[in-house]
Amino acid sequence: MPHARLAVSTVIFALSPDEGAERPSLRLPLVRRLREPGLGRWALPGGWLPVDEALEAAAARTLEETTGLAPAHLEQLYTFGAVDRSPGERVVSVVYWALVHSDEVEQAVADENVQWFDEDELPPLAFDHLAIIGYALSRLRTRLEYSGLAHAFLGETFTMAELRAVYEVVLRKRLDPANFRRTMETSGALVDTGERKSGTPHRPPALYRFDPRAAPPRMPFAGSR
Amino acid sequence: MPHARLAVSTVIFALSPDEGAERPSLRLPLVRRLREPGLGRWALPGGWLPVDEALEAAAARTLEETTGLAPAHLEQLYTFGAVDRSPGERVVSVVYWALVHSDEVEQAVADENVQWFDEDELPPLAFDHLAIIGYALSRLRTRLEYSGLAHAFLGETFTMAELRAVYEVVLRKRLDPANFRRTMETSGALVDTGERKSGTPHRPPALYRFDPRAAPPRMPFAGSR
Repeated sequence: MPHARLAVSTVIFALSPDEGAERPSLRLPLVRRLREPGLGRWALPGGWLPVDEALEAAAARTLEETTGLAPAHLEQLYTFGAVDRSPGERVVSVVYWALVHSDEVEQAVADENVQWFDEDELPPLAFDHLAIIGYALSRLRTRLEYSGLAHAFLGETFTMAELRAVYEVVLRKRLDPANFRRTMETSGALVDTGERKSGTPHRPPALYRFDPRAAPPRMPFAGSR
Repeated sequence: MPHARLAVSTVIFALSPDEGAERPSLRLPLVRRLREPGLGRWALPGGWLPVDEALEAAAARTLEETTGLAPAHLEQLYTFGAVDRSPGERVVSVVYWALVHSDEVEQAVADENVQWFDEDELPPLAFDHLAIIGYALSRLRTRLEYSGLAHAFLGETFTMAELRAVYEVVLRKRLDPANFRRTMETSGALVDTGERKSGTPHRPPALYRFDPRAAPPRMPFAGSR
């Protein structure tokens, strides 16, 4: 009797490097399919689950093999198992997701078959991967609202403007700088390192880091989308 | 080449009928294993995933076949796929969960091989089902904190004391009645039906219902566990 086959896939989000005043965009890596089904289309990094490999390990391995990315932690997103999601064969995909820093993106593989795409400029996708990405984006936005995951996009230290840019990109809305600063400062989730961003004009902005012991900042404006 | 096999399981939570002053308990149905592996142990309702059945449909069907329960909605909880979680065979289980009302419990099957157990008095469980239940309980507590899911345990209308009992049981702590009432009333999530609970002594308590349009009540005390 035929069984469903198990696959793993990963959705990796990163911010494009912030070119000055320009608002960065949310990007994810996709891999071009070199065989049917979906030959030539783009798909999430992934592969079949070996019988002797744990789910997250298989997701991390296939991600690294295809993109060179090795995020510190992959989180299970959801398992997609619609009967008709893959032509000719029943495939159930356990999907993991992670956020990476821009500098990790620079180290990642990029060739004609592995590319980063802006969330707003996705190419034709194989299977139900467009729906999977949509689900991941909604989870990302919810998570940003309920927890301080923004720092996963940022380095150890960051400016208030850099942090606000993360929220603006993920929530897809402009945020008032003064309100944002007030919300963040009163949340107690930020620590002023006392240092200032180097290589910036005559008034270098303060550098902050997240306080791991603090409760995540609640974003009153996040829900108002 | 051998593949992992896919199974589905469900975690169903209900409150025991509230016997007067006694605090209700959180219960879930388990099914006794009648074959190896785990013969004689108790397990979550579930079964193998047919190649032509959707995940949630298979979870709902196996739940109904074993327990007679047919919750309006099953939500995917998590997919468990540790290599060694089932002896002799690689099994990946997609687990769904739901909350049901006490009256649904009364209609459910109950025989020597299908029984409801208090979360604090679980029998020896097969596979990693104890860990799965623990994960479901933590999800339940988080969800209660972030959304108004308490009403899933209650009927259309309920008293403030009945609602508080849900929070006390799930959060495993006593809640101050006055503070709880204030939090709920200011949340705007409750509507006073103007009716009063019948069959109660000379001062029958008011009956409330949830306002589906309202934002879920935020429980300031929930996080303080």
